[in-house]
Amino acid sequence: MMRMLVVSLLSIGAIVTSVHVSANEPIQPIKAVKPENPKMVELGKMLFFDPRLSKSGFISCNSCHNLSMGGTDNIPSSIGHAWYQGPINAPTVLNANMNLAQFWDGRAKDLKEQAGGPIANPGEMAFTHELAIEVLDSIPQYRAYFKQVFGSEKINIDSVTTAIAAFEETLVTPGSRFDKWLEGDQAALNKIELEGYKLFKSSGCAGCHNGPAVGGTLYQKFGIHTPYKTENKAEGRKAVTGKETDLHVFKVPTLRNIELTYPYFHDGAVATLEEAVSTMGKLQLDRTFNEQEVASIVAFLKTLTGKQPNIRLPILPPSTNKTPRPQPFE
Amino acid sequence: MMRMLVVSLLSIGAIVTSVHVSANEPIQPIKAVKPENPKMVELGKMLFFDPRLSKSGFISCNSCHNLSMGGTDNIPSSIGHAWYQGPINAPTVLNANMNLAQFWDGRAKDLKEQAGGPIANPGEMAFTHELAIEVLDSIPQYRAYFKQVFGSEKINIDSVTTAIAAFEETLVTPGSRFDKWLEGDQAALNKIELEGYKLFKSSGCAGCHNGPAVGGTLYQKFGIHTPYKTENKAEGRKAVTGKETDLHVFKVPTLRNIELTYPYFHDGAVATLEEAVSTMGKLQLDRTFNEQEVASIVAFLKTLTGKQPNIRLPILPPSTNKTPRPQPFE
Repeated sequence: MMRMLVVSLLSIGAIVTSVHVSANEPIQPIKAVKPENPKMVELGKMLFFDPRLSKSGFISCNSCHNLSMGGTDNIPSSIGHAWYQGPINAPTVLNANMNLAQFWDGRAKDLKEQAGGPIANPGEMAFTHELAIEVLDSIPQYRAYFKQVFGSEKINIDSVTTAIAAFEETLVTPGSRFDKWLEGDQAALNKIELEGYKLFKSSGCAGCHNGPAVGGTLYQKFGIHTPYKTENKAEGRKAVTGKETDLHVFKVPTLRNIELTYPYFHDGAVATLEEAVSTMGKLQLDRTFNEQEVASIVAFLKTLTGKQPNIRLPILPPSTNKTPRPQPFE
Repeated sequence: MMRMLVVSLLSIGAIVTSVHVSANEPIQPIKAVKPENPKMVELGKMLFFDPRLSKSGFISCNSCHNLSMGGTDNIPSSIGHAWYQGPINAPTVLNANMNLAQFWDGRAKDLKEQAGGPIANPGEMAFTHELAIEVLDSIPQYRAYFKQVFGSEKINIDSVTTAIAAFEETLVTPGSRFDKWLEGDQAALNKIELEGYKLFKSSGCAGCHNGPAVGGTLYQKFGIHTPYKTENKAEGRKAVTGKETDLHVFKVPTLRNIELTYPYFHDGAVATLEEAVSTMGKLQLDRTFNEQEVASIVAFLKTLTGKQPNIRLPILPPSTNKTPRPQPFE
């Protein structure tokens, strides 16, 4: 009895420590998501992978938010219809539901609103919502899935983007080494990684990169102390608010899985984490990190790679004789 | 005891019927594949999905042999680097191991030899074998996988294409309704489908489309009785053998999963199975199928759709600071 009591007290002690560590940190662990509506998620997954939502029949959501590659395309700016060079680096879809808004400039309020954008963007999927619906509507299996999920065979852009968003909401990455440390596993980080994290906090990085997604919670000017030199023309929030003070103010990106989501910054101009950390120090904190400091922060950042979503490739229902044909070369 | 005996005899009867049906048919069921080397298959799957084997970092094997869409891209001819319009319709990778050779003109003797082609083709992935190896070699996890599978960290194009081929060999589609019928389940086909199959045999289609893949076993001239009208410049076997008699002689394509692998013919000019069947009747058999005949053959062809490979999307190991950067727009 005495022994059991000791064990119990030890257990309580461990739990208290765990809660303590997490509660005092600017970053919180990512929680696994249990989908409320698995059938809607499955439908959304099909749509996410279906290139028939593009004019060419070649580009799907997964083309630029590739779930084999951290939910990005790992190129500076995306390739759109007819090899159009996109204006900005594709943000990761992983943990994107934690962002205060979507796109670098926050012009879409949520994942559902975001999902409609690329389909109709001439430089991305180059389709129209009307034609995308016409394609889906011509495929009996899709009509049946929509009926099952939304109670009606009548497909519209609202149900399409609702389903895609429901799938995207499941794309979270719990279980990183850093989260294990947050949850009380002291051995989950080594000395350098922990030093990096302490420096990340003490130097001010965590002022913007915080919350469960280690970012995504606010907008911030890129180039607070020193302007960022780029040929990229993106204006950031100014394009949304029209205010001159919002020039080059962007949504602070998540640092979750940052090891996988290279290249970095809105222009994708920086290929390595070392250069990204060093640049951020100078531009945002007016601080020159030495080589060892950069290395420790990079080591910390690499502990933010979580368990990637386990995706079974969907089998898409075939087009029918009534389905509008893709127009890749027109 | 007596009752058991009757049951046993009935069982034997069923088995005998099953063997009997299959043995007399020009088409044989597809058998499931149990990979000899699952780790090599897993490595091959990663390579199959890895767009870093292309110059742009955007095009993978799966881009044109999309396993969500019957192992094809469902467009007349494929989109290559810089949106180059490919010269020919992408054949399905499903059951491709049963082909006597690869590509429409059979210029690659097997899947391994095929796999190296698109990587270095300027109109497809537009890379070089050397650069592809350099990319893989810069990624420690890839080196470790290759060591595990091939016993050496030294990656070369031979090991890359061996692994891709090992993965592709698993991409078979057993379990179609037609195979169930072949295996003795009389109820697996309805009356029209069975009529279609009988007509498929009696009219001569099965003369070329036979074997487990319902094709892929021989070369045949396209346009035996009437020349096929197309703007496509592919010469077929002539490009390989140099013989004038091989002009427009192509590998007979598999009809497995034909419902999923539209559009049809080497130029991808025909969008519907009805038109494809009707055209083949005229050109190859000098026969005009009436509407009902076409419908029955199409109904039969749709019973050839098998269970699609169950693919878990691979998580690709990230590039490192040493990895050559993709060059999408150069």
